[in-house]
Amino acid sequence: MARRAGAGIQSICGGKARCGKCTVITKQEGDLLSPITESELKFLSEAELASGYRLACCALIAREGTIVVEIPLETRLGRHRLLVEGIEAPVDLSPIVRKLAVKMPKPTLHDVMPDTERLIEAMKGSGEIGEPHLDYEALKALPHVVREGEWMATVTLWGGREVICVEAGSTSHRLYGVAVDIGTTKLACYLVDLNTGEILAITSAPNPQIPYGEDVISRITFSSESPQSLAELQKVVVDEINRLVSTACEEAGVKAEEVYDMAVVGNTAMHHIFLNLNPKYVSLSPFPAVIGGSLNVKARSLGVLISKGAYVHTEPCVAGFVGADAVADMLATEIYRLNELSMCIDIGTNTEIMLGDERKLMACSCASGPAFEGAHIKHGMRAATGAIERIFIDPESLEVTYKTIEDAKPRGLCGSAIVDVIAEMLKAKVIDHSGKVNTELKSARLRVKEMVPELVIAWGNETEGGNDIAVTQRDVREIQLAKAAIYTGASILMKKMGVTASGIKHIFIAGAFGTYVDPRSAKVIGMYPDVPLDRVKFAGNTAGSGARMTLKSVKARKLAEEIRAKVEYLELGADPEFEGEFTNALFFPHLELDRFPSVRRMLGL
Amino acid sequence: MARRAGAGIQSICGGKARCGKCTVITKQEGDLLSPITESELKFLSEAELASGYRLACCALIAREGTIVVEIPLETRLGRHRLLVEGIEAPVDLSPIVRKLAVKMPKPTLHDVMPDTERLIEAMKGSGEIGEPHLDYEALKALPHVVREGEWMATVTLWGGREVICVEAGSTSHRLYGVAVDIGTTKLACYLVDLNTGEILAITSAPNPQIPYGEDVISRITFSSESPQSLAELQKVVVDEINRLVSTACEEAGVKAEEVYDMAVVGNTAMHHIFLNLNPKYVSLSPFPAVIGGSLNVKARSLGVLISKGAYVHTEPCVAGFVGADAVADMLATEIYRLNELSMCIDIGTNTEIMLGDERKLMACSCASGPAFEGAHIKHGMRAATGAIERIFIDPESLEVTYKTIEDAKPRGLCGSAIVDVIAEMLKAKVIDHSGKVNTELKSARLRVKEMVPELVIAWGNETEGGNDIAVTQRDVREIQLAKAAIYTGASILMKKMGVTASGIKHIFIAGAFGTYVDPRSAKVIGMYPDVPLDRVKFAGNTAGSGARMTLKSVKARKLAEEIRAKVEYLELGADPEFEGEFTNALFFPHLELDRFPSVRRMLGL
Repeated sequence: MARRAGAGIQSICGGKARCGKCTVITKQEGDLLSPITESELKFLSEAELASGYRLACCALIAREGTIVVEIPLETRLGRHRLLVEGIEAPVDLSPIVRKLAVKMPKPTLHDVMPDTERLIEAMKGSGEIGEPHLDYEALKALPHVVREGEWMATVTLWGGREVICVEAGSTSHRLYGVAVDIGTTKLACYLVDLNTGEILAITSAPNPQIPYGEDVISRITFSSESPQSLAELQKVVVDEINRLVSTACEEAGVKAEEVYDMAVVGNTAMHHIFLNLNPKYVSLSPFPAVIGGSLNVKARSLGVLISKGAYVHTEPCVAGFVGADAVADMLATEIYRLNELSMCIDIGTNTEIMLGDERKLMACSCASGPAFEGAHIKHGMRAATGAIERIFIDPESLEVTYKTIEDAKPRGLCGSAIVDVIAEMLKAKVIDHSGKVNTELKSARLRVKEMVPELVIAWGNETEGGNDIAVTQRDVREIQLAKAAIYTGASILMKKMGVTASGIKHIFIAGAFGTYVDPRSAKVIGMYPDVPLDRVKFAGNTAGSGARMTLKSVKARKLAEEIRAKVEYLELGADPEFEGEFTNALFFPHLELDRFPSVRRMLGL
Repeated sequence: MARRAGAGIQSICGGKARCGKCTVITKQEGDLLSPITESELKFLSEAELASGYRLACCALIAREGTIVVEIPLETRLGRHRLLVEGIEAPVDLSPIVRKLAVKMPKPTLHDVMPDTERLIEAMKGSGEIGEPHLDYEALKALPHVVREGEWMATVTLWGGREVICVEAGSTSHRLYGVAVDIGTTKLACYLVDLNTGEILAITSAPNPQIPYGEDVISRITFSSESPQSLAELQKVVVDEINRLVSTACEEAGVKAEEVYDMAVVGNTAMHHIFLNLNPKYVSLSPFPAVIGGSLNVKARSLGVLISKGAYVHTEPCVAGFVGADAVADMLATEIYRLNELSMCIDIGTNTEIMLGDERKLMACSCASGPAFEGAHIKHGMRAATGAIERIFIDPESLEVTYKTIEDAKPRGLCGSAIVDVIAEMLKAKVIDHSGKVNTELKSARLRVKEMVPELVIAWGNETEGGNDIAVTQRDVREIQLAKAAIYTGASILMKKMGVTASGIKHIFIAGAFGTYVDPRSAKVIGMYPDVPLDRVKFAGNTAGSGARMTLKSVKARKLAEEIRAKVEYLELGADPEFEGEFTNALFFPHLELDRFPSVRRMLGL
């Protein structure tokens, strides 16, 4: 039925009830579907079944009637394209910049009021304006502009008190802003119409600082060498942001000088480097940031090429590496105002975890590394055309089925496939609880190459490059380190809050990787606490959505400050339990299997 | 007696009662001096004689007793060196910048407050500070500075609300500012200790914009050609100011980055060009300025090399070319708060005239040109070593006596000598009422060279260069134009205010030229209204003193705004009486001799 309706449901095993990827949520009055199968009992938890979760390949229509079938995000095909925007809490459209068109009397010998005073008088006449002052660049442009517009001009007011731009004639209908998410690995740039709140264009690119160091620590080390090194890192990222803004503007038919505000988020290191603030001490105990609060800096001081008088607004940073991106995550997911306990995991090269509710919030940061973004993985690649994104291993034959982005010939494994393949290897017992590959199994796909055991995912004759694509024992170790880092953060936060997995009502998985990963596979490998699937929400790039919220609303800026003040920061490295927790979390799903009852059952451990 | 006491009284004629330059003011009980001579009756007015004015060469001691002899500024030797500072009204020492030394607790794992918030907390603990924010440059320096000073730092607060500088350790005792007067022809720069109000160093230089045009109109024409031309003019003046600041700092043992504030004055054209604001429309009817109010612009936006976070403060401009310098003149002379009617004439290439009292103030601007600064005068030069500064012509023999600066061999005539020589030529009837040289007179000094009559002041064998130094008919015409421009301004202002010369209780002559000129000679040629000598005050460079006042006191800044709001601007060019007044004022002292009764009497007209 779903296929006929073109619903676009994932199905790796081809409807053989083997992969468990075609989860849907059904709602019906009475019993209109076929009974729950053994496969469904294996892949779905009791709670999920109770909530109406079924596998699409198993749930057949038994009786006529009304059945509402919801296809969760993680089951949808092509969702990596849909979800780049991320979930976003609604905000009043009240940007810090607004335009005001004013008509001035022409000067005469009897009225020689200077241009600036003439403009301000006219502004006062048009509304409730206090005593605005002109940005120096706006002032320089003023004499030409007012005459070009024949004493009709449009001012852009920042915060109701500073004229950051003056344009000839009436241009009130053109008011734009850009939100920027500076990820350690990826930059995203959103062009927003500030008159409507609409996103006009999205552009993204790898962070050009990667050659200077893959993770935040190595970039901090580089930038701490000298003020020139810091300035160099700052310049490369600003240059790339300028390119992204320019491309987005071109797409939308907007001029870069019509962008009057920019909101920027990033972790504390990315935030500091973008602002040309020395991040050295953020990496040295006790890890103090240079500034915690939000900041408004003239775009021109940073080399950002938008309206000459515009400000760049950076969100507040919590502490350590829990930066402006984490505050944006909380803004977008609203976990700061939910009355049920929620966790937000923003997975990236640096992963931030927030846990709490309207009463109390805690946050920590984990050095999860870039493995989930395809780095340090033998055949890893980013989520682009030809990347294998879904994998299913037949537990008996060890035959591998996969799906690539845009169904192109495979070129490598993206993050979601890496998580998938490890979960599948666990289920097929290709690896054990400790992550060790069982080389005793008989399969042509299982081999030892250059002393390292590996499982071939795609043979050379199937691939774009003509070489086999495989997952190696070393890849498994990389993922173990990465997922252990994340789970350790989550686990210590839970201990500090005095809660267990069952107490967590919502888990928001944020970040680009989180958008693609199969939540079931991620749970199997033990990346996040064992909660029923219906509590896991894919939030997409919430750092970007939070940035857009602050671009669109001054209230959101205030909220961001309140969130920052509310969040209690936990320095993981300073926690005495950290090492023990981390070591135990290296196991799949965990050394203490009691923590993962549903996974334990599924794997039959 | 005066000579024995080393009092330094000017005496051009050598005590022969012929030049009338050795005026002193005497106070005595009873009649202790010799009777008033005929010469004194000739050189001094009745009012002056009544006030105790005498010629030092005529007033002999007749009886023993106590006589207090005051030597007016204009009679003193070497006063061009004493008077560069100008008179200055007293102000409370309350600069816009102040320093605050703060001690912060060192961050620990239990106190990871970011550097910025830590600093602000400490500041709040030290006094009544609101919510200060950090200048971006101060923010960038912060992490290094607080650690260098081992969590002891000194902040410089601007306006009580912005931290413009952070320095390691305690540096509160070092707080400096610079006042700058941008004259059309000359720049002056005053380094002030803002903890004491003391002037530490004064530097000055010709305005490097002179090659782009001698007067304000030609510079406006040049700068209106293109934004690049304007930027070029802006850069040359800022570069020169940077050199003057650097030299002043070196002299005083101060670093340029310890200069935390700058106050700048100049006429409207100089003001606009310094700020890189297009002055084009200031020269086109109805002559509106780009900005009238005072302005604070980051020094770094202008290229001014002082403390990185410092502001440059420009004083308000009245209208037309009556700019920030005129406001500074009024601040320094306090004519805005006197209950007696006063006039202030700030003589320069552009001359500003202000007339009024605490109730009403009017101002205008006159294009007097650079003749009084030695330009357009055949043997003119600026007031430097070897410049002839005083001249006496024997009315009978036409023999010329002169005095040079530092008694060096003569090199040319400075402004004061030019005014002197014209007054002397009038008295000796070498020129008539209309300025025409009487070539009928028999003297070797009077000759016609290349068709132009001239009077030789110094023969080649006396001069530094070996050539004769002379005053030509053309020089006389230049001075006629210049003095007529000034008198016309004064005269139209008086008409608008409904007053005559006798109603003016004080005339302040300001500007560098005003410092050197002999007020009697200036009155003889008709440069300013005919008032008794004791009403004429030499104010020196009041534009510079006014700038220093605003540097030292925020109250003075507020006063400046009040003065600007109070002054009524008069556009001379638009006045229907202008042309007629100007033509009549070309005569010496004026076509209508009734306006100059004391001069008329002296010249026997």
